[in-house]
Amino acid sequence: MLDLNTTVLEETIDPNNWEELRATGHRMLDDMINYIQQSGDRKVWQPIPAAVKQELNTVAPQGESDLKEVYASFQQNVLPYALGNTHPRFWGWVCGGGSATGMLADMLAGAMNASPSFGEHAANYVEKQVLDWTKEMYGFPKSSSGILTTGASLANILALTTARNFFNAAIRKKGIRNLDGQLVVYASTETHSCLQKAVELLGIGSEHLRKIAVDENYQLRIDLLEEQLKQDKTNGFLPFCIVGNAGTVNTGAIDDLEIIAAIAKREGMWFHIDGAFGAVPKLLPEYTERLKGVELADSLAFDYHKWFYVNYDVGGVLIKNAQAHKEAFEINANYLAHHERGIIAGELNYNHLGIELSRGFRALKVWMILKEQGVEKYRRMVRQNIQQANYLAELVNGNASLQLMAPVPMNIVNFRFYRDGLSNDELNTLNKEILMQLHESGIAAPSFTILKGAYVIRVAITNHRSKAEDFDILVNEVQRLGERILNRN
Amino acid sequence: MLDLNTTVLEETIDPNNWEELRATGHRMLDDMINYIQQSGDRKVWQPIPAAVKQELNTVAPQGESDLKEVYASFQQNVLPYALGNTHPRFWGWVCGGGSATGMLADMLAGAMNASPSFGEHAANYVEKQVLDWTKEMYGFPKSSSGILTTGASLANILALTTARNFFNAAIRKKGIRNLDGQLVVYASTETHSCLQKAVELLGIGSEHLRKIAVDENYQLRIDLLEEQLKQDKTNGFLPFCIVGNAGTVNTGAIDDLEIIAAIAKREGMWFHIDGAFGAVPKLLPEYTERLKGVELADSLAFDYHKWFYVNYDVGGVLIKNAQAHKEAFEINANYLAHHERGIIAGELNYNHLGIELSRGFRALKVWMILKEQGVEKYRRMVRQNIQQANYLAELVNGNASLQLMAPVPMNIVNFRFYRDGLSNDELNTLNKEILMQLHESGIAAPSFTILKGAYVIRVAITNHRSKAEDFDILVNEVQRLGERILNRN
Repeated sequence: MLDLNTTVLEETIDPNNWEELRATGHRMLDDMINYIQQSGDRKVWQPIPAAVKQELNTVAPQGESDLKEVYASFQQNVLPYALGNTHPRFWGWVCGGGSATGMLADMLAGAMNASPSFGEHAANYVEKQVLDWTKEMYGFPKSSSGILTTGASLANILALTTARNFFNAAIRKKGIRNLDGQLVVYASTETHSCLQKAVELLGIGSEHLRKIAVDENYQLRIDLLEEQLKQDKTNGFLPFCIVGNAGTVNTGAIDDLEIIAAIAKREGMWFHIDGAFGAVPKLLPEYTERLKGVELADSLAFDYHKWFYVNYDVGGVLIKNAQAHKEAFEINANYLAHHERGIIAGELNYNHLGIELSRGFRALKVWMILKEQGVEKYRRMVRQNIQQANYLAELVNGNASLQLMAPVPMNIVNFRFYRDGLSNDELNTLNKEILMQLHESGIAAPSFTILKGAYVIRVAITNHRSKAEDFDILVNEVQRLGERILNRN
Repeated sequence: MLDLNTTVLEETIDPNNWEELRATGHRMLDDMINYIQQSGDRKVWQPIPAAVKQELNTVAPQGESDLKEVYASFQQNVLPYALGNTHPRFWGWVCGGGSATGMLADMLAGAMNASPSFGEHAANYVEKQVLDWTKEMYGFPKSSSGILTTGASLANILALTTARNFFNAAIRKKGIRNLDGQLVVYASTETHSCLQKAVELLGIGSEHLRKIAVDENYQLRIDLLEEQLKQDKTNGFLPFCIVGNAGTVNTGAIDDLEIIAAIAKREGMWFHIDGAFGAVPKLLPEYTERLKGVELADSLAFDYHKWFYVNYDVGGVLIKNAQAHKEAFEINANYLAHHERGIIAGELNYNHLGIELSRGFRALKVWMILKEQGVEKYRRMVRQNIQQANYLAELVNGNASLQLMAPVPMNIVNFRFYRDGLSNDELNTLNKEILMQLHESGIAAPSFTILKGAYVIRVAITNHRSKAEDFDILVNEVQRLGERILNRN
């Protein structure tokens, strides 16, 4: 009812009818729990019809719509055309599957509408607790600093920025032209492209990211690293950082982290590790030796939405030298000045540890899932995925039509369909066609890469819903498609 | 039941009991809808008790827990200690209040677990549609490029990176030491600190962000900009970018965007606008003139979680030169190569337009809220907030104990409690004490800043739940606290 005594009718974007909102919300929740529960019952992926793309290409809505209609459009045009990474047979790139608990946590975070940054509120403490748990899992001391990010890409950027600004504290003020030489960073050719992006962003230039060749196990060649370092020092370059891989994106290779740590120490350089997914087996006793170097790093980039199966997006970085971390990013502005009491009295200021002032409460889903599952369960889950990779490698090795294309040090299997008499180019074309048909069939979704000139089908297992039988289905289907394509040609 | 024929009992992090999960989920949803519905019924903010902080400072959980217990801990230790920005009387910094629809959208996004990046899936098209709508609202041509980010901080970084790499395409490969001069950026002293962070990150150095003084309206002084430009060119510097403010963080001042656009054009420089919240009134006919320059910019950073009231976190950037945007960030990796068909066949590749490969589906909440509310409703809401700012300014001007401390060009009001005979230092101490007690009382939450040496209470109205009476309460309370503190001293 309009009160005629008020001159302005004040509006809000809250619902006019809360009970209707509530009913719609509960229906959504039921649908979404069904959607997650039935992850394996639908096709992994299906193409988007032209009519749907047209619906997603209309002008801005001017008038109001009922939430039920908006939801109907979501159900019709969005939900059916997902990437597929919630499915038990999705193993493309390095995607996690998410969980119902993660979804509910995002709902709770959305209700609080928290931004863990400055100020005295619980979200900051939840983020700190998650980071402290992360330190425990990766063997970093509690005195380390850290921050959550949207993922390892940003985390790598924050680590390299800290390394750069630690190398020379005047860089923040004077820029890198003020240095008396060119900064250089070292990493293997198998390093993720986000590291190149980081080096470009920081103004260093991609040609000063020295991409060191790898050996037959796709591990950085230490001899070539030493050679390059020597040459660069002779030529007046400024080597300030070595990036080691705990799990390369192509094959899951782990660089000789302990040796790299020793070289970095000897040279007074920063040692950063990209452990987006591959530092996670640090939880397992059987990887203690191979991942020992993780705890020797100055900084570690990691993801939670990959091998911890947390819903997108959340990753982060740990930095041992807390002071260096803060000094790399802290800026004091009048409108953010610390107070002794009240909302701005908090001692946790994530705005001083990264490049974002507003930040979503992505810590909550990690916090809830880790509390619910516990570290022991993760130990079993990560081991299960590695066992599945070994199982798949055995299936491939036992099949005369398939070829294993790289060692399997962890959770990634690269293989291809093979037939005597076909050239490498013909095999590449054939395997690419198999992969595209596999996607189109909706049966399974590995991805692909190029290894030593060969197009390979790449299976990265960071999927908590996969079972052994799913890999049987994959192998059968790749063989069936390969034979069929060959017979048709 | 354990099947003795299988050698491995495969686990998942999906719930053992889906019906229990469903019941807990529905209870959470009811609680959260109540929480949002009752936003105004609780204190804006309350301090976190030591016992709660202790609960949020325990070691990593090893064993499994019931989701109900995890939720109980959330209810006890997290939810009650929010920042307060969902409350009708929260006006601190520039925070939005979020909405129930946004929360539900985050739930839907969490279920899909989408990462809009590469590949052919609906999330990419939803993000594109949201960006196209954004272009319409801000007067950018449809041929512009853009990407959503966690907020304007990252958006400003992406814009400056594009500007820098467009200035000299060799920077990506060779770095900025290869240039024959020092890059410089121009912006007013009132510019947000995230621009300084951006300039530092990019290796340019903060002293090469020329902070141009402002006039009495807190607008960049064009004469001083021209002078600095001339001097820098004479001294061999490389001016490549001017940043204009559409709404400064302290007072909401709008720089002379059209004049700056003309200068940038004349000098062949990139013109970027930080419009985090202050470009939003572009929706209003009464701001057409003052915000005309927005459509002249080469790039615009904006937020959705501020004045569009969308839940954290989501902002973005629009870039007119789509080619320059892509060329600033695109990297082609073997494991991401485009295919003709299948999952990787999509033409939308947000990984090529920014610095993140994994990215949350933050587009969905914007999409749903804009569809539900429509642009016309936003016109009314934004106008309402501006009217409330004017109403508050009138209350301040009509009160002998209060002093308006800056012009109110938009939605931000700066004022202080004033008493004849007190020095500026004494007034500063007094007003800071008033603000802290205001926070502690839980009645209202403005923030603060320093303007020309004066500590001021700063009210930034990007709150869709505020009503006129809330500002009456604020003014009465500030006056009451001021008198009480004076009487006690």
